[in-house]
Amino acid sequence: MKKLGLIGGLGPASTPDYYLGIIDGYRRRTGDINYPEIIIYSVNMTETTGHAERGEWDEVALQISGAADSLARAGADFAAIASNTPHIVFGEISGRSPIPMISIVDETCKFAARAGYKRVLVIGTLFTMESGLYDVPLAEHGIAPLTPDGGDRKRIYSLFFPNLENGIVVPEDRTEMLKLVDQIAYDQRADSLLLGCTELPLMIKPGDVRVPVIDTTRVHIDSIVDHLINN
Amino acid sequence: MKKLGLIGGLGPASTPDYYLGIIDGYRRRTGDINYPEIIIYSVNMTETTGHAERGEWDEVALQISGAADSLARAGADFAAIASNTPHIVFGEISGRSPIPMISIVDETCKFAARAGYKRVLVIGTLFTMESGLYDVPLAEHGIAPLTPDGGDRKRIYSLFFPNLENGIVVPEDRTEMLKLVDQIAYDQRADSLLLGCTELPLMIKPGDVRVPVIDTTRVHIDSIVDHLINN
Repeated sequence: MKKLGLIGGLGPASTPDYYLGIIDGYRRRTGDINYPEIIIYSVNMTETTGHAERGEWDEVALQISGAADSLARAGADFAAIASNTPHIVFGEISGRSPIPMISIVDETCKFAARAGYKRVLVIGTLFTMESGLYDVPLAEHGIAPLTPDGGDRKRIYSLFFPNLENGIVVPEDRTEMLKLVDQIAYDQRADSLLLGCTELPLMIKPGDVRVPVIDTTRVHIDSIVDHLINN
Repeated sequence: MKKLGLIGGLGPASTPDYYLGIIDGYRRRTGDINYPEIIIYSVNMTETTGHAERGEWDEVALQISGAADSLARAGADFAAIASNTPHIVFGEISGRSPIPMISIVDETCKFAARAGYKRVLVIGTLFTMESGLYDVPLAEHGIAPLTPDGGDRKRIYSLFFPNLENGIVVPEDRTEMLKLVDQIAYDQRADSLLLGCTELPLMIKPGDVRVPVIDTTRVHIDSIVDHLINN
């Protein structure tokens, strides 16, 4: 079986979700008590966020592709980044990586197309929303990408960063987040809400808003399990 | 800062405890929002358990030292095994490992000595209890190692394995475990209970039995954080 190298730590809270989710998904899908070997390289997120805030995206790509290099040296056959934001420079990272990488953006767009969504509201870190990370990939699947306007973007980011990266859900922030996002989805006639940050599923659950929720973490985990089973 | 390589997956449930515990411990001790890079190699536990059940301890040592090798290639400066049982062959593993390793047994015995315990009841997997993993190291610190008798060992193991390895606490098993262990501690005049399996803290908490509980996972995490801060 191919060996997964997972780039984690972005933030710390979603890395165990990936780890346990992959083991659980593999076991449920195969009916096997065995589970795949997984290698995780957990990077220092404050370094990544610092680069991103200063617009040093080349440095982000260097940091993440360095982790992919280490994972390859440890024996990983393919890799995945347990985070949406670094996918802003996924082309550079995967171009430098000695092993193939599974993109959370590509897998989520394929999922949204299969599910038949036509108007997808994307939320995530400020970087993810402002870069339009999902815009072109969604459009290529015939889906209209929707984003909150400038003020709402800042408000959304401030409602989950940095607490949620460490797994902390502040109840008042959650209440305001659900109200705000639900209203934006209604105003923009979205038919679904894409949680473009791997920690957001800790705060926003299916049924919390009026439209279906696309959980990018879950979609990515399922694709990784597919790859483990079929390769 | 030195980089930790963690050998995980033995079982899957305690690996996230180590990962998040090390990040949290480092942040609390240093007051720094940054956190150390960590590399994790999660092995297939059913392979390890299979070797152990057949008495193939050389194979266990090969499997675990192979993971240490991979971690060193990925850039780890030192390593730790997030599990008690493989420490039965810790000498072989650390002898083969290209990087130094922090033993959960050594750190726990030093902790028990500092805490002033004199009669320590050790429970863990059947392998850990039958091998007397903690006997000599505890005795070297002037501590009397106590173990359940043969029938109780099998009962204790059956009450947590394999469910607890996957993070599942069965309420009736927990009730019986607490009653049984509390009685053995009383009968053997133990002054403390050593949880010699990294998943046991999910089932047995301080205050659940009449004697203080030694949480080997917690002691090991604290030693790893010490090593990260002081090296």
